[in-house]
Amino acid sequence: MYDLIIKNGKVVSPTSIVETDIAVKDGKVSALGDIEDLGDAKRIVDAEGKYVMPGVIDAHMHVEAPFQGCFGANDFYTQSISAAFGGVTMLMDFTNTFKGKSVFEAVKKRHEEMSKSAIDYSIHGKFVEAPENILNEVEKIVDYGCPSFKLFMTYKKEGVMADDETLIKIFSRAKELNALPMVHAESNAIAELNIEKYKKIGDLSWPRFADSKPILCEAEAVSRAVYFSKYVGNALLIVHTTNGEALDIVRKAQNEGYPIYVETCPHYLTLFKDLYEDPEIGYLAICSPPLRTPQEAENLWKGMQDGTISVTGSDDCTYSKEEKTMFLEKDENGNFIPDFTKVVNGCSGTEIRLPILLSEGVSKGRISINKVCEITSTNVAKIFGCYPRKGIIAPGSDADIVIVDMNKEVTLSPEVLHNNIDYCLHEGMKVKGYPVMTISNGKIIIESGEFKGKRGDGKFIKRQIEPDILRRFSL
Amino acid sequence: MYDLIIKNGKVVSPTSIVETDIAVKDGKVSALGDIEDLGDAKRIVDAEGKYVMPGVIDAHMHVEAPFQGCFGANDFYTQSISAAFGGVTMLMDFTNTFKGKSVFEAVKKRHEEMSKSAIDYSIHGKFVEAPENILNEVEKIVDYGCPSFKLFMTYKKEGVMADDETLIKIFSRAKELNALPMVHAESNAIAELNIEKYKKIGDLSWPRFADSKPILCEAEAVSRAVYFSKYVGNALLIVHTTNGEALDIVRKAQNEGYPIYVETCPHYLTLFKDLYEDPEIGYLAICSPPLRTPQEAENLWKGMQDGTISVTGSDDCTYSKEEKTMFLEKDENGNFIPDFTKVVNGCSGTEIRLPILLSEGVSKGRISINKVCEITSTNVAKIFGCYPRKGIIAPGSDADIVIVDMNKEVTLSPEVLHNNIDYCLHEGMKVKGYPVMTISNGKIIIESGEFKGKRGDGKFIKRQIEPDILRRFSL
Amino acid sequence: MYDLIIKNGKVVSPTSIVETDIAVKDGKVSALGDIEDLGDAKRIVDAEGKYVMPGVIDAHMHVEAPFQGCFGANDFYTQSISAAFGGVTMLMDFTNTFKGKSVFEAVKKRHEEMSKSAIDYSIHGKFVEAPENILNEVEKIVDYGCPSFKLFMTYKKEGVMADDETLIKIFSRAKELNALPMVHAESNAIAELNIEKYKKIGDLSWPRFADSKPILCEAEAVSRAVYFSKYVGNALLIVHTTNGEALDIVRKAQNEGYPIYVETCPHYLTLFKDLYEDPEIGYLAICSPPLRTPQEAENLWKGMQDGTISVTGSDDCTYSKEEKTMFLEKDENGNFIPDFTKVVNGCSGTEIRLPILLSEGVSKGRISINKVCEITSTNVAKIFGCYPRKGIIAPGSDADIVIVDMNKEVTLSPEVLHNNIDYCLHEGMKVKGYPVMTISNGKIIIESGEFKGKRGDGKFIKRQIEPDILRRFSL
Amino acid sequence: MYDLIIKNGKVVSPTSIVETDIAVKDGKVSALGDIEDLGDAKRIVDAEGKYVMPGVIDAHMHVEAPFQGCFGANDFYTQSISAAFGGVTMLMDFTNTFKGKSVFEAVKKRHEEMSKSAIDYSIHGKFVEAPENILNEVEKIVDYGCPSFKLFMTYKKEGVMADDETLIKIFSRAKELNALPMVHAESNAIAELNIEKYKKIGDLSWPRFADSKPILCEAEAVSRAVYFSKYVGNALLIVHTTNGEALDIVRKAQNEGYPIYVETCPHYLTLFKDLYEDPEIGYLAICSPPLRTPQEAENLWKGMQDGTISVTGSDDCTYSKEEKTMFLEKDENGNFIPDFTKVVNGCSGTEIRLPILLSEGVSKGRISINKVCEITSTNVAKIFGCYPRKGIIAPGSDADIVIVDMNKEVTLSPEVLHNNIDYCLHEGMKVKGYPVMTISNGKIIIESGEFKGKRGDGKFIKRQIEPDILRRFSL
Repeated sequence: MYDLIIKNGKVVSPTSIVETDIAVKDGKVSALGDIEDLGDAKRIVDAEGKYVMPGVIDAHMHVEAPFQGCFGANDFYTQSISAAFGGVTMLMDFTNTFKGKSVFEAVKKRHEEMSKSAIDYSIHGKFVEAPENILNEVEKIVDYGCPSFKLFMTYKKEGVMADDETLIKIFSRAKELNALPMVHAESNAIAELNIEKYKKIGDLSWPRFADSKPILCEAEAVSRAVYFSKYVGNALLIVHTTNGEALDIVRKAQNEGYPIYVETCPHYLTLFKDLYEDPEIGYLAICSPPLRTPQEAENLWKGMQDGTISVTGSDDCTYSKEEKTMFLEKDENGNFIPDFTKVVNGCSGTEIRLPILLSEGVSKGRISINKVCEITSTNVAKIFGCYPRKGIIAPGSDADIVIVDMNKEVTLSPEVLHNNIDYCLHEGMKVKGYPVMTISNGKIIIESGEFKGKRGDGKFIKRQIEPDILRRFSL
Repeated sequence: MYDLIIKNGKVVSPTSIVETDIAVKDGKVSALGDIEDLGDAKRIVDAEGKYVMPGVIDAHMHVEAPFQGCFGANDFYTQSISAAFGGVTMLMDFTNTFKGKSVFEAVKKRHEEMSKSAIDYSIHGKFVEAPENILNEVEKIVDYGCPSFKLFMTYKKEGVMADDETLIKIFSRAKELNALPMVHAESNAIAELNIEKYKKIGDLSWPRFADSKPILCEAEAVSRAVYFSKYVGNALLIVHTTNGEALDIVRKAQNEGYPIYVETCPHYLTLFKDLYEDPEIGYLAICSPPLRTPQEAENLWKGMQDGTISVTGSDDCTYSKEEKTMFLEKDENGNFIPDFTKVVNGCSGTEIRLPILLSEGVSKGRISINKVCEITSTNVAKIFGCYPRKGIIAPGSDADIVIVDMNKEVTLSPEVLHNNIDYCLHEGMKVKGYPVMTISNGKIIIESGEFKGKRGDGKFIKRQIEPDILRRFSL
Repeated sequence: MYDLIIKNGKVVSPTSIVETDIAVKDGKVSALGDIEDLGDAKRIVDAEGKYVMPGVIDAHMHVEAPFQGCFGANDFYTQSISAAFGGVTMLMDFTNTFKGKSVFEAVKKRHEEMSKSAIDYSIHGKFVEAPENILNEVEKIVDYGCPSFKLFMTYKKEGVMADDETLIKIFSRAKELNALPMVHAESNAIAELNIEKYKKIGDLSWPRFADSKPILCEAEAVSRAVYFSKYVGNALLIVHTTNGEALDIVRKAQNEGYPIYVETCPHYLTLFKDLYEDPEIGYLAICSPPLRTPQEAENLWKGMQDGTISVTGSDDCTYSKEEKTMFLEKDENGNFIPDFTKVVNGCSGTEIRLPILLSEGVSKGRISINKVCEITSTNVAKIFGCYPRKGIIAPGSDADIVIVDMNKEVTLSPEVLHNNIDYCLHEGMKVKGYPVMTISNGKIIIESGEFKGKRGDGKFIKRQIEPDILRRFSL
Repeated sequence: MYDLIIKNGKVVSPTSIVETDIAVKDGKVSALGDIEDLGDAKRIVDAEGKYVMPGVIDAHMHVEAPFQGCFGANDFYTQSISAAFGGVTMLMDFTNTFKGKSVFEAVKKRHEEMSKSAIDYSIHGKFVEAPENILNEVEKIVDYGCPSFKLFMTYKKEGVMADDETLIKIFSRAKELNALPMVHAESNAIAELNIEKYKKIGDLSWPRFADSKPILCEAEAVSRAVYFSKYVGNALLIVHTTNGEALDIVRKAQNEGYPIYVETCPHYLTLFKDLYEDPEIGYLAICSPPLRTPQEAENLWKGMQDGTISVTGSDDCTYSKEEKTMFLEKDENGNFIPDFTKVVNGCSGTEIRLPILLSEGVSKGRISINKVCEITSTNVAKIFGCYPRKGIIAPGSDADIVIVDMNKEVTLSPEVLHNNIDYCLHEGMKVKGYPVMTISNGKIIIESGEFKGKRGDGKFIKRQIEPDILRRFSL
């Protein structure tokens, strides 16, 4: 007697769509085959006409992160609910690291903070400096099950930037320990000098935000990180890549065999910098790197299709309107005085990542549903070292599953989402293709539009990355 | 009660290795899961420590083909035995097409000839001209289940060459009918003028064979075929690619999104043109395109690793020494007078393809076993339109399976092979990683080094290619 | 006492603009320096504010050429007048070659025909086949002073196409003899099959002409010629290149060091395929390759700027309206029935090449006047082997000089030109920058808008190409 | 009556070799032509069989520069003598800039120091920081006639490094003022961390020097500078480029039209890193970037040939053995303890640049003598803004001329050179092609192996760069 059988669905992997039934027991996938042969289950779900996919992993988010003084609308429990509605069955977030403080302690603290999540989770160590004592911690962090690190190449004034020496030191340590550094790639010099320039000319309106960090600002940093990585010999993940120029840099390195991987995020596929032209609400779209153009979005779709982009993440920062504007000053009429330097950065994305990839990707013929599986789940699990426990529907894997109805149409709005904020940058966007059931460790946690999971049900997943992935470009 | 359960093996797909048991019934894979849950079977095979892979498909061979007056050492029955020993569970061969004759009739004749095979099979139509009546046959051939065509860009004197007009016409028809043309790409002008030149200077020794068709000879034809394909908008498969220059041409087209696919063959990975330096037996290595260098072999491995090469085939032409030399004249001492133009072209390869990829590829760390699965089976099935019936181990698929022991070491020689010829170009080569059991439609046909299959057990497989594969580069 | 001094001008070379006076004696440049030092002359021309450039060489034209049954509006005498008005001081044309006939005899015949020219001239041998006897003639043609050959890759039906074997044979001979082949690169198969297609669907209107030979039609042939040239090791000139795709092919070969050179023509810079949309006079713009788009013109300007394009020619074919339409049939209303296959190909260009490059190039800031000098004169003289006799203003060189007024504005029309046809495809185009005086062998032949030269004054110039130019990409 | 006539020579420019005589008056080239026509001169030099070239300009040297506490073997007068023996007729050096001090004052101080030179000279401003007051000086420096600036991307500890912000600020100012920044491109982070690493493992032997700044160390910095330059829109010169990877980065930018120029130096063409293997004298070859391999030298020759490299300089730092070793410690036996971090960087090169390019370049068939003219003189004059006063032999230009005998063979050694040091890294190298006479401002200063110039005869040359060169890649 199985706990659960999902029958009649089309089971998706990166290279196959198989019409088979799935039997689940003790939180794991137990068997694939015909229900006739498999036998009975306590619960049988009929997925006729639907796709059954490994649960989405969101390895890029910022929750309970006092970034620039804001905290966001969610804690890890409410975040895990919103995520589950978006087909997500595992979260990864970063440590809150401060100069002079232990990163390993920050990992453990984060572990505690994330333990309220309803779905499984893990942690990336963030490094802002690399003195001897911090370098000595790296092994402990890897052994703790967190072999992936985040480094910012900008935000020097905020004390978050890892300078060139730090990058190389952490890259070197990562190589020795089979770990994966990931970088937020923007040239701090270009960004800061632009802010100076716009301050000088007295125009800090929203459109200047995009101008302050143009594509070359991102491309320079990508190029630099790639060179350091080639030099050190480590694997690298470039996060939230926004444009074709950056992809071309990495594509060349990948063609040479270097294990340089790329992530992009849903907002760069669907939101564009014309949003900053709206003086009323342009600030809501301020995130880093900035939004680009529809042409760059096509470059990103092409990059997913041709394999240059290996994974997607959300870079979720769910700030309310109030938080977005809390540092802005007002004029005598009570209107905000535009100043892009005072708007907290970030967009919400965890819940809409899968719908957007299904609708804009699959329904519009840009990518296949296999590709969606690959870049939302399989490759994420592989690259961060929790495959085949996660990222695949196969006997022995965790029963983290999302059932997708490619015919379901939804018009996005704050009301249909569960991210606890009072606006939606995709407001009014019609998507076709939506998750309709989410299963975490064999339990149905989203069904018929309702959350049925439980605070704290998520487990911390120890991770270990397959060395071949870190040795050459291969997933 | 299943017919067969394979237990404890590591089941391979292009993106996964799953430790699970496999239940087979009525010639199909019935379920994946734990044998404890699945229940009993008439026969249980223990694959502990071994890899269980979808059966290899050899879509490129020349059997019962009166090419240049030779017939080869095998008919389709004996070929299917040799193939099965190499883990092959499906054969595809070409029609014997003659100018002025129906290709559709040739397909049906081939169907009959191949029906003696012990394993499943299919047919590619070969086109040497494209007059109206032949173009009208194309749809019938596709409907018959054979949506793939072969075109030679050389062998003009032999009446086999498809000229530029023919290429474009067949490409156009293929596009309309969701079919895939494949080309043997060598510049006929370069090859023929070189033969003229070497005749004039009186040196037709074996090394001149390689000189007569240098890399540029192949590259020009690849480039031309790619341009025609870009112009027409059809998908294309370049067969038996031998070098990095040719790969670069296709890589560029693939990066632009064009559905241009590449095949390579085992002899280009392991045999090199120094073989022609041997005056005694250099002729045995004469095949077209000629053998190249170790450096080019590395380019091919890189092309497999990075995805430029999608499939491998054998281009098997199993000629005995006697056949290889039957047109050579002898001098007064009874020694053959070297004349590369009189040696029938071709090497044997069906049985050794998988061992070579396992040993030189996986054991030596150049490619993963997933990649081997992809380029010997999954992608072959996809590209030729018999996926997921073939090319995957999943519920509902044909139970065409090969079990591989990565620790088995074999020294290649005519004695260990079953291809009925009295020499082996790989004689003495040690391989590590070898197929130890082959299952065709659920029946064990190779076990403990013995063939247990039956003449005529193979079925003709109707094929239909997924349109997306033909529309853009994607597998 | 000099014959002529040009004073106060800015003397142009590819790398310099020098303010100096020029003394001419006995048809040669005698000295450069200050007229104060040089002394007196029979005639002193004041070029204050003007540029003094080496005379333009037009190495690509079709005069007295019974192509498709038309003869054009000019013989070599009237052509030389029109040319001189355009700053041209040397003509090169091709032999009229017929299958089975001697090319060497054709060279001598052409010599005779061209001897009526008022300016210097030379001849390229055209090859349409390469049997032994023709190959044996090549050396005589080179020794005659004509080390440059033309080969058409299309016009098979017209008996003009050199097939692949012919290309390779002539390339090989050229290499041995320090000669330069040039190719008209269009895929005959694509062009002919398109004509068949458009005949079948019954639409042979002017726009279909451009569609019948798209960019890929040209690119395939360029690629093929480049491969043959790489294979043989000869230098090659691709004539009348129209687009960026073709340039990219050559750019890659040039970067690898191969001596592959490119020519473009003024009409591809200024006329676009929208001209074919005019049902009334679209036929006037029919030339091969067809006109392209403004974007491609920008690619050509870039190719001149970055050195990929080494030379310009006119491809002048000056047909009257009557000749252009002489094979067209008429409907019952006496209107021409559009049929692009019946329109003789070609545009007039000799007289406007320099003005267009000055106006669209220099005045609009796309290229420098040094570049104009380089691609209209210096490089042409070098590549065809008459440098430094031609192509430079230096002591000892022929005094072939054109004086250019960059401030002169002219509106192009049949009236201002001297090409003897009743229309002008550039009608109404305003150009800024125009030749105002032309000097041939020290004699002023164009002055104040009047021709002052003499029939038969031109000399046949024996040419010999510098081997380094043929060995690697270098001018 | 002219002051000087050079007769019977072959006068070289980047695109021509003209057999003509040259008349000089009042320090200027007065006329080119036949001496028969030109008349008499006070002094007639017969250059029969020799090449007459515009004098070499050395725009990259470090004289009277207290770098790392050494001063070098020459002051500007003795340096100008050594230079003149190498065919050099103009020197440019950099300011000695210190943090917190005026760069404009440093320019004026340098002007004074250089005024003892026997040949003409100019100055580049060096910037190590870019605070407001320094940025305000830039215009004064440009107006002073020095529109070219040097920036080091490494040597942070020495206080010389311009950080990313400084680079961008100076680039921006340069763009506004039609000036040309040049960068020493090496990643400081890679270099410093390597020194740390080698210190830690206790191996600071000479070979580690090359390992500490590998090609990727240079390439990263080149890439970064190119990105900043693309971003700002300024022209840029990358100095002393040593390898193909760096060239590829710039080649791509040049193909896109960006005005990014490249310099290389003679030692990277002829000296290789195996020199560091010599424990006795390996330290003599320590210069930055380090010496590379013969393969990289070939990449540099190719880069000159194809135009990627526009200019050569010497990067002359003429330190004696004593200076090279002055900071090294000794062991008990009195032998130096190897420590590459304590060896002052730099090689001598001014006097041998022309001989090396003539011998290794022209005599060995790698480049033409026109190319030598271009990269030692014409392009240097253009890029730094003193053309056509310098860099060309034409009426009106300064009579800075070098006469070259391509048949003269010299074996390099300290004895044949005049650089005042007691060793020669090229000791024993035979060169074919050597300057035999040097003329500065119309005066013969080197003749028959003797210096005939005068201390202080050199003039400061005010420079101004042609805007087109700074706007797009074009020389």
